[in-house]
Amino acid sequence: MTRDDRIPVGVLGATGSVGQRFVRLLHDHPWFRVAAVTASERSAGRPYGEAVQWAQEEFLPPEIAALEVLPTEPGFDAPLVFSALDASVAGEVESRFASEGVFVVSNARSHRMDPDVPLLVPEANPGHLDLLDAQSFPEGGGIVTNPNCSTIGLILPLRALHDAFGVRQVHVVTLQAISGSGIPGIPSMQILDNVVPYISGEEGKLEKETLKILGDLDGGAIRNAEFIVSAQCTRVPVFDGHLEMVSVGLERPADPDEAIEVMSAFRGVPQELELPSAPLRPIHVLDGEDHPQPRLHRNLERGMAVSVGRVRPCSLFSLKMGLLSHNTVRGAAGGALLCAELALAQGRIPGIRRP
Amino acid sequence: MTRDDRIPVGVLGATGSVGQRFVRLLHDHPWFRVAAVTASERSAGRPYGEAVQWAQEEFLPPEIAALEVLPTEPGFDAPLVFSALDASVAGEVESRFASEGVFVVSNARSHRMDPDVPLLVPEANPGHLDLLDAQSFPEGGGIVTNPNCSTIGLILPLRALHDAFGVRQVHVVTLQAISGSGIPGIPSMQILDNVVPYISGEEGKLEKETLKILGDLDGGAIRNAEFIVSAQCTRVPVFDGHLEMVSVGLERPADPDEAIEVMSAFRGVPQELELPSAPLRPIHVLDGEDHPQPRLHRNLERGMAVSVGRVRPCSLFSLKMGLLSHNTVRGAAGGALLCAELALAQGRIPGIRRP
Amino acid sequence: MTRDDRIPVGVLGATGSVGQRFVRLLHDHPWFRVAAVTASERSAGRPYGEAVQWAQEEFLPPEIAALEVLPTEPGFDAPLVFSALDASVAGEVESRFASEGVFVVSNARSHRMDPDVPLLVPEANPGHLDLLDAQSFPEGGGIVTNPNCSTIGLILPLRALHDAFGVRQVHVVTLQAISGSGIPGIPSMQILDNVVPYISGEEGKLEKETLKILGDLDGGAIRNAEFIVSAQCTRVPVFDGHLEMVSVGLERPADPDEAIEVMSAFRGVPQELELPSAPLRPIHVLDGEDHPQPRLHRNLERGMAVSVGRVRPCSLFSLKMGLLSHNTVRGAAGGALLCAELALAQGRIPGIRRP
Amino acid sequence: MTRDDRIPVGVLGATGSVGQRFVRLLHDHPWFRVAAVTASERSAGRPYGEAVQWAQEEFLPPEIAALEVLPTEPGFDAPLVFSALDASVAGEVESRFASEGVFVVSNARSHRMDPDVPLLVPEANPGHLDLLDAQSFPEGGGIVTNPNCSTIGLILPLRALHDAFGVRQVHVVTLQAISGSGIPGIPSMQILDNVVPYISGEEGKLEKETLKILGDLDGGAIRNAEFIVSAQCTRVPVFDGHLEMVSVGLERPADPDEAIEVMSAFRGVPQELELPSAPLRPIHVLDGEDHPQPRLHRNLERGMAVSVGRVRPCSLFSLKMGLLSHNTVRGAAGGALLCAELALAQGRIPGIRRP
Repeated sequence: MTRDDRIPVGVLGATGSVGQRFVRLLHDHPWFRVAAVTASERSAGRPYGEAVQWAQEEFLPPEIAALEVLPTEPGFDAPLVFSALDASVAGEVESRFASEGVFVVSNARSHRMDPDVPLLVPEANPGHLDLLDAQSFPEGGGIVTNPNCSTIGLILPLRALHDAFGVRQVHVVTLQAISGSGIPGIPSMQILDNVVPYISGEEGKLEKETLKILGDLDGGAIRNAEFIVSAQCTRVPVFDGHLEMVSVGLERPADPDEAIEVMSAFRGVPQELELPSAPLRPIHVLDGEDHPQPRLHRNLERGMAVSVGRVRPCSLFSLKMGLLSHNTVRGAAGGALLCAELALAQGRIPGIRRP
Repeated sequence: MTRDDRIPVGVLGATGSVGQRFVRLLHDHPWFRVAAVTASERSAGRPYGEAVQWAQEEFLPPEIAALEVLPTEPGFDAPLVFSALDASVAGEVESRFASEGVFVVSNARSHRMDPDVPLLVPEANPGHLDLLDAQSFPEGGGIVTNPNCSTIGLILPLRALHDAFGVRQVHVVTLQAISGSGIPGIPSMQILDNVVPYISGEEGKLEKETLKILGDLDGGAIRNAEFIVSAQCTRVPVFDGHLEMVSVGLERPADPDEAIEVMSAFRGVPQELELPSAPLRPIHVLDGEDHPQPRLHRNLERGMAVSVGRVRPCSLFSLKMGLLSHNTVRGAAGGALLCAELALAQGRIPGIRRP
Repeated sequence: MTRDDRIPVGVLGATGSVGQRFVRLLHDHPWFRVAAVTASERSAGRPYGEAVQWAQEEFLPPEIAALEVLPTEPGFDAPLVFSALDASVAGEVESRFASEGVFVVSNARSHRMDPDVPLLVPEANPGHLDLLDAQSFPEGGGIVTNPNCSTIGLILPLRALHDAFGVRQVHVVTLQAISGSGIPGIPSMQILDNVVPYISGEEGKLEKETLKILGDLDGGAIRNAEFIVSAQCTRVPVFDGHLEMVSVGLERPADPDEAIEVMSAFRGVPQELELPSAPLRPIHVLDGEDHPQPRLHRNLERGMAVSVGRVRPCSLFSLKMGLLSHNTVRGAAGGALLCAELALAQGRIPGIRRP
Repeated sequence: MTRDDRIPVGVLGATGSVGQRFVRLLHDHPWFRVAAVTASERSAGRPYGEAVQWAQEEFLPPEIAALEVLPTEPGFDAPLVFSALDASVAGEVESRFASEGVFVVSNARSHRMDPDVPLLVPEANPGHLDLLDAQSFPEGGGIVTNPNCSTIGLILPLRALHDAFGVRQVHVVTLQAISGSGIPGIPSMQILDNVVPYISGEEGKLEKETLKILGDLDGGAIRNAEFIVSAQCTRVPVFDGHLEMVSVGLERPADPDEAIEVMSAFRGVPQELELPSAPLRPIHVLDGEDHPQPRLHRNLERGMAVSVGRVRPCSLFSLKMGLLSHNTVRGAAGGALLCAELALAQGRIPGIRRP
């Protein structure tokens, strides 16, 4: 495929942490190419390479560094945009793009809980894309959202366990990486030689988003899953990779080996469709007694797989385990990319099709 | 008081991490003075200042640096010893000292679960010292143990809550500091930019010790507390201070304010007796929405107080909260020192008395 | 001494990193008491305890937490103020205070290189206080400055070596702590698992301030020292404590033992006068082959001493060594406090005298 | 090429930090395949996957995990071995392999300074391979060594500058990563929130190896380069990537732009021969005023390039700059691999040839 055949896409809020990750992941993408990057008024008009404080380990591709940063307004030529906007502006801006016939895949929280907006984890609830039918944007317009970074890692194992055994309670304590706090994000004086047992708004997101994602689409609306999630969220001095210590209560008894088998065997629509960003195995259950660990396992399957370890009985619930996912890949830009791939592959983005 | 009036004590295993902390805390102690330091054969005969790889922030006092390291054998002149021995040797060696009429306060796990050995948190179960009556050592001999570093922090709030509301379930996820792994302890390549969701043996200790400590002494034996504890233990890149994210199920309903009041008001026998190492307030409930934090709060009351924050309702249990304690002070050497002070003040160490 | 006898002082810019350190060090000061704290308009009118994001390990004293934050304007009742203002405003504001008859001891860089302003390290150049005679502020007014945090640590050993052997060249590479970057300071994503080989403006400050401080007061003006300093400054993931790897060329040959003796024996006017913040020994030369280290030695003599280690021959210059000082104590608030103590003890602050 | 065509090689000391890196880099190598892994007696006989404490971010390839660990003795079928042995045993063992007709490329220091052993940085001194003629091993046997990890990064820029301007003095302060200290390596309690200004033996290696590598081969022997190197080595809490702050005195004056041009244009024999591990550009001179940084630049050209930044005048020497190289790739396993590729491509390994 020559470059020109790829679908031009925009990245809204391209200078931030998640925006940078979108740019990086899109650079080698077989279907999409970055045609436009937007940022705040302050950066608009400058070359992206100057406007951004690039903090990724790979070099910024020169052709992208040369792109002029646009203001975050509809009007440029791209049928699909990825939003890494701050929640303070995302809601209104994303609606505006959709109203102009642009398909928006957003990592912002603004529309996540809207009744007619899919909160999508492609392996877990691909059918929720049907909510798009309820959206009233003009031809080509639509909004799909990606969950919070700490939610996604939890969803995949829960999907597998819920299908097999029925989930009744989820108790989760997160140990979240600093890259989740954005740029500039958490100051070093607050996190070096320290842990912060609080992340603003995070526990509520984890508790509520989980129930919407694992809910059923029923008569055009989501009926939330009916179990209870209790979350405690902490920030730790780790660069990338959210670790979550989880206890799960199940309806039907399951011993650790059964749970391991179910999670290891779990596959979803993205795997069937062989979407470019889909991991071969969404969940890797690891053997090591001290696994998973952020530094060792966050990059599993290019950061798109969730790893699980220490599956064992819990004296209060049924099972406990540790799980890990890469918060800015699977938990943000990579997850949103997979949402776009799914929507495209299923013909849900009118006017463009899988190359 | 001149120096000579203080009671001479020994530190067994004085070159390790906890041993060093004992040396440091004993240096300015009003009742005790370090008269003997012991270590393995390899170090015996050398001056302590040369044998130890001193890793404390304060300078090693010269008079202690000059002490000759003794082999870890009974025979030196000290009626009381603190044991910071490794569990691989502690059991047998401590029994030998006690058999020679020495009173042993141990931080090792070897004798903790022995039915006739107090597992002591002085504010929580001072009455367990009565188990000493069941020990059959000669006059002056005895063994008292200090719990695991992650247990102690949990015990104080649980004691307060159990007395007031009755505890039924405890779910705890720990984020433990590296100093708990001893010297050399965890290699930097395993913990820099990383978290390890496993500490060998730790979860079992936390689950079992808690029930013994909060158990009742009944007819000369401990009847364990009857609630359930489920623990998940992780190691984080923090120097000192164990943070624990705790959910507690209570028998009688309590809202956060009631729990806060009960914990803040909690006092024990060490406070009544004004023991030198006792914190004025064993539990500090903090206001900050992101408190407690290891770097900010581990040194509260010279590391002897537990801090608690974010007390709030839990959708699965009754309440959830974060708590923090200094793992090598309250959780090890400082805690053991307080045990010795209590035993001495209550006349439990025959032959010596409170100066 | 009852509290009322102490001299009321103000802290300008009291909510920042250095401002907090001033508040903390002044709390137990025998001569001074914090009577006023100032900050930007945004904070003015609020209680200090609410306006500040307190990041010190000790608790904020309640009586200081209750102080109302004042705008940073002259007019409150304190003959002496400590300035922790940002350089963007310090120059003009400090002059205004001095013009109103207030004695200002500043940690900001704004007036450091003014020809009539002492750039003071009390052990190194106490005589530079005579520059105050050239200042034209009204009775009681004056400005004294404290050098940059990385300069102070270097000055003490250089003073000792320069007096004994004559310094000709200084080559210094710094490894500076994050607390030097203020609040919020360097983002964690820029410094975790990383080193930044650049600190804006730092190398120039180190190169120029050193020559002024070690210069001679000659006919009412400073004649700069005539050696050459070449500096390279880096930021490392350490909380407190600047380490500096130094090579020194000397006029008269000196072997390491001679240099060690000269540095160890070094004392200054603050030691003679027994000023409250003065370390007993300004320079501690350490024996350990891998010393000094930030975590182990930054708090030597309550953070007011400089530690030196690994003094050895250099194949390019005369000697090389490592040195360490606490950047927010000796290198900022503590150093400025010592400047005020010296000025007061020497009768340089008209209207107030040593209690 | 099918797998069978690749040359079978052995990795001696395959379970350590550098040994693991060899295994990882060899896995996808176009010329070589791992046919044997050796370790100490304790591990011999076990599958590699069980004997190793794998600490690389990529998963251990299953076919290598299944290899039986051999004792570190000659006798297995591989004409070429890479030695990651500890220096305590490397000298004797490597000689034994060479005596049995095996070509040894070693990362250990044991033979580096032997007069007849090339200390090789392929871009800098490829001609030193001629020293092999002076070795008296049987057909096929030979020893080539790779320099110390902190030396290699320094050598490439020095080669470029020495050729163009003549180097007279080199003053270097290193900030070295923890992965250079091996497994288990430096304990976390010694390096978290800390810097250690000492690495045993490192300064001498850096000072001496540099002169041998940049020396001339003259009449079958190396004549060392005649400038002076003064080194100070520190360990910092960074995972991978050695940063070095360097000042260089030159014979012929050069301004920063000339030096930048010379370094940027530098190419060597590995680039001409297009060796598989050779970076396209050995030295990348970066524009950012705060570059290079370990986290951002260590992986440049898969960790095989050196990055340089902040080239500027030095008031004591001619120029100063910061440089960075990946210590376990370019500075160890990757560098050694490039040595083997060079030797093979130049027909220096009798019996095997470039596939």
